[in-house]
Amino acid sequence: MPCVVSIDGQRLLDDLRVLRGFGATGTGVVRPTFSDADMAARHWLREQMEAAGLDATIDGVGNVVGRSPNPAPALLIGSHSDTQPTGGWLDGAMGVMYAIEIARSLRDDPDTNGMAIDTVAWSDEEGTYTSCLGSSSFVGALTDADLLDANAEGETVAAAIERVGLASTPRSRLDPGRQIGYLEAHIEQGPHLEDAGLQIGVVTSIVGIRAVRIRFVGEQNHAGTTPMARRRDAGAAMFRFGAELHERMAAVAGPTSVWTVGDAHLVPGAPSIVPGAAEMVLQYRDPDEATLDAMRAAVSELVAETNDAGPVDVDATAGRSPIAPTQMDPELRRHLAEAAERTVPGSWTEMPSAAGHDPMVLSGHLPCGMLFVPSIGGISHDFAENSADDDIVTGCQVLADATAAILSAAQRA
Amino acid sequence: MPCVVSIDGQRLLDDLRVLRGFGATGTGVVRPTFSDADMAARHWLREQMEAAGLDATIDGVGNVVGRSPNPAPALLIGSHSDTQPTGGWLDGAMGVMYAIEIARSLRDDPDTNGMAIDTVAWSDEEGTYTSCLGSSSFVGALTDADLLDANAEGETVAAAIERVGLASTPRSRLDPGRQIGYLEAHIEQGPHLEDAGLQIGVVTSIVGIRAVRIRFVGEQNHAGTTPMARRRDAGAAMFRFGAELHERMAAVAGPTSVWTVGDAHLVPGAPSIVPGAAEMVLQYRDPDEATLDAMRAAVSELVAETNDAGPVDVDATAGRSPIAPTQMDPELRRHLAEAAERTVPGSWTEMPSAAGHDPMVLSGHLPCGMLFVPSIGGISHDFAENSADDDIVTGCQVLADATAAILSAAQRA
Repeated sequence: MPCVVSIDGQRLLDDLRVLRGFGATGTGVVRPTFSDADMAARHWLREQMEAAGLDATIDGVGNVVGRSPNPAPALLIGSHSDTQPTGGWLDGAMGVMYAIEIARSLRDDPDTNGMAIDTVAWSDEEGTYTSCLGSSSFVGALTDADLLDANAEGETVAAAIERVGLASTPRSRLDPGRQIGYLEAHIEQGPHLEDAGLQIGVVTSIVGIRAVRIRFVGEQNHAGTTPMARRRDAGAAMFRFGAELHERMAAVAGPTSVWTVGDAHLVPGAPSIVPGAAEMVLQYRDPDEATLDAMRAAVSELVAETNDAGPVDVDATAGRSPIAPTQMDPELRRHLAEAAERTVPGSWTEMPSAAGHDPMVLSGHLPCGMLFVPSIGGISHDFAENSADDDIVTGCQVLADATAAILSAAQRA
Repeated sequence: MPCVVSIDGQRLLDDLRVLRGFGATGTGVVRPTFSDADMAARHWLREQMEAAGLDATIDGVGNVVGRSPNPAPALLIGSHSDTQPTGGWLDGAMGVMYAIEIARSLRDDPDTNGMAIDTVAWSDEEGTYTSCLGSSSFVGALTDADLLDANAEGETVAAAIERVGLASTPRSRLDPGRQIGYLEAHIEQGPHLEDAGLQIGVVTSIVGIRAVRIRFVGEQNHAGTTPMARRRDAGAAMFRFGAELHERMAAVAGPTSVWTVGDAHLVPGAPSIVPGAAEMVLQYRDPDEATLDAMRAAVSELVAETNDAGPVDVDATAGRSPIAPTQMDPELRRHLAEAAERTVPGSWTEMPSAAGHDPMVLSGHLPCGMLFVPSIGGISHDFAENSADDDIVTGCQVLADATAAILSAAQRA
């Protein structure tokens, strides 16, 4: 199917700038979940969904859900509208505005106005209270205990919902007989597309994330009177381990693997004391479970070697809540790739997502597809986050084209 | 001169245990400078000096100084009576009680009762307010500004002196026409003597101490979306540097050199963020200035190599207040060595002090000699600090013998 849907790029950009106004701070946006700015944005988004011909509500956890009056099959399209504590203006917001722009563009085109586009602006993807709150609720994975456990600076989700007036509002749930898939567009948040000079990334998977806490136990001593040969210096052991760790990880890494020691410290941490203990946290990500296993094995091997060599004891504990890699649906991927090739021939690629997104939660319940547009300088979670206007419009055009193709195929089936 | 002086070992041990009672906490002592326990101990020490026939006072910075009624030449003998925040019972205290025991033993022996033994319990060697406060005052190196700058949790030295009632008390000063040298005995605080099965260490020098702060500046990034090849990971650079640093230092080290990275941290220090900066503090000690220079050069060389290799920028800044190595006086060393050989033939050694002591301040003004007794397990600055009773008594006997020999030689000259 050729590119039959024409979105209105200027309307999209204008509305994105209006949305930016909710919580605008310098070039960035401060719109954490359940803040006044966040709730004001959600009310405005609900109005835009209504104006696009959808039956729209803010549900019991803050999700803004727009339901097309058209019958199944429906595609759910969206992203989140909350931001990081000091966030950029496109992270989440762009994908939400794409959904609304696609809903109204398809409604306004006689060839597509019978297609059912449901839209969503998820609540708290960024985890001000708990990551992917809205999508977890939508698939029935959020328990009453979660509502009381998760909190932001002491305020539970339940208390926040009460505060913003949603305590007696029902929560929207996935309609499996109706929604055949979920599409989300997002800024890449990395430099791959920009570096390669490409306009579109079709996401193959969202990387899995694991962490391991590595603890070194030696013997605390006086830094003057303890001879080098008698020391069991936990810090020196950690430095050697850290240096070697990078070599070992590189040896087993896949082409898109990343690993980071983002935190490390010595105990007690005084210039005149030989450290008695030390600790580092290694986080590693890859789209492939087998590669994650190989990275974990490399850590275990180095831990064992370090213990054998002495004189410091090392142990490694897996971090809580590892995230398994999430594969995007092959059919949705194929439609997104074909739409990209039609719209920007040769200027797109398939790639994993190195950051987390709501499809991590949704993909166990309905097929998911994701699309990336380039991030200038690869920057995100920062006021400096930005993308070129042309890239923003192109991304929406590709997603609209894919949406029409997917629903057209589903209607024929 | 054979061993003419007999000290009373039981009296020494009994008095040491009384002194331990001031601030006793478990097996350790909490007697920081100008605390109630510290001042009570100083008053008790003044009484013991008086009882030993000395004219004793607590001076304007808390030094307890006992002056023999005998004429010059005099030897000043002592140590400090303040402790670390959680200190051991012998650090400082033992050397003070040695001085008093020697003063009374020599007074009670007709062969030595004309010798002039001045005694001292220095104030704040441990630096609760400022290291070597008392000895600095004694040599005229303490300024009025120091009294107002140095402080413990906001209380200046001047305020503390006022609080303990010493504001209008004069400060004792070195009497160069009278005092021909200073002797101090101390626990070793390290394992060398115990490891070698020796009873006495004659100190050759106090090691010099230098520090260098090494700062790594890279680029802070998202730990998921930043490809490994694009990272400028300050933490990874620090781990590599830290591992290599130990090799480089070992290559230029002398037989008693020590070096320690006791503090290190990553910025911002979060598992999901590639560190944009990192910092470590290297402290290194050696009795030889040339070796200290070689260690500093090794650091500079590694810094330069790291900068050349990229991608992270490194710089090294020398820490404030380096401490130069302090040589003990050759004549006093010779007397201490001869006394050790007479008392415990073959069971002593010459050795540097790896920890700091008041002679660092005093040696520019009068000849200094130091003597060590074994520390059990090499432990100090800890409640577990201890030495065998026999070793404590032997150390005092050697110091008494050396004292008599030194003063006898000085009287003959």
